[in-house]
Amino acid sequence: MTTDFNTTNQDNAAPLETDETNDMISSRKVQGTAVYGHDGAKLGTIESFMVNKASGQVEYAVLEFGGLFGIGSDHYPIPWNQLRYSPDESGYLVDLDRDALEKAPKYDGAGDDGFNTARSHEVDTYYSTI
Amino acid sequence: MTTDFNTTNQDNAAPLETDETNDMISSRKVQGTAVYGHDGAKLGTIESFMVNKASGQVEYAVLEFGGLFGIGSDHYPIPWNQLRYSPDESGYLVDLDRDALEKAPKYDGAGDDGFNTARSHEVDTYYSTI
Repeated sequence: MTTDFNTTNQDNAAPLETDETNDMISSRKVQGTAVYGHDGAKLGTIESFMVNKASGQVEYAVLEFGGLFGIGSDHYPIPWNQLRYSPDESGYLVDLDRDALEKAPKYDGAGDDGFNTARSHEVDTYYSTI
Repeated sequence: MTTDFNTTNQDNAAPLETDETNDMISSRKVQGTAVYGHDGAKLGTIESFMVNKASGQVEYAVLEFGGLFGIGSDHYPIPWNQLRYSPDESGYLVDLDRDALEKAPKYDGAGDDGFNTARSHEVDTYYSTI
């Protein structure tokens, strides 16, 4: 899968919004954006990023799915390079479907089942096989 | 200035929180975090990141200052590598003071005065002289 974060802003002459340029996008704008699988079904929304503290590299986008108003929802960290932006969908596309997502590593945000370094290796391994 | 996003989690045996590991931190956790100048004065809080769409690199942390509940506040994009985390302060330190910040490029988030590519060059130039 190629990484493509192009947006409609590159395709027409509309004024750029404050929270987006040709090259960059605000974390506030990405959070809450829908994520669609390769079959077109909505898989969830982006809840947050995981950022490498030293380099500033966004390593994972955390996809949120299920629950009610954020309570009881599952969190699926997806490697950033698995996401590409679709202007037509106004959302991100991933090369997954619901079944593949449900088998992916996740955490519920509670206690010891957090997203730690060991878990990040597990995530990387999973997506390297997709 | 060295980039150092180490946190107290590396200094003790406390369980890692879900939104932070030794290497990574959640965008949700950084947003709202205080930023202090080199004289110890609080300059503002981090409102958001600007992320390179293609690479996933966090280019700027946007410092918010002034206004009331986000209305009328100014936004100062600061290159990510200018920030380092201080466990003692529970916040980020920058090698600026209030005077230097007030001279830095900013935007108010309204209309044409947005953060565009031309503005990002202006920001880079300003901080390269600090």
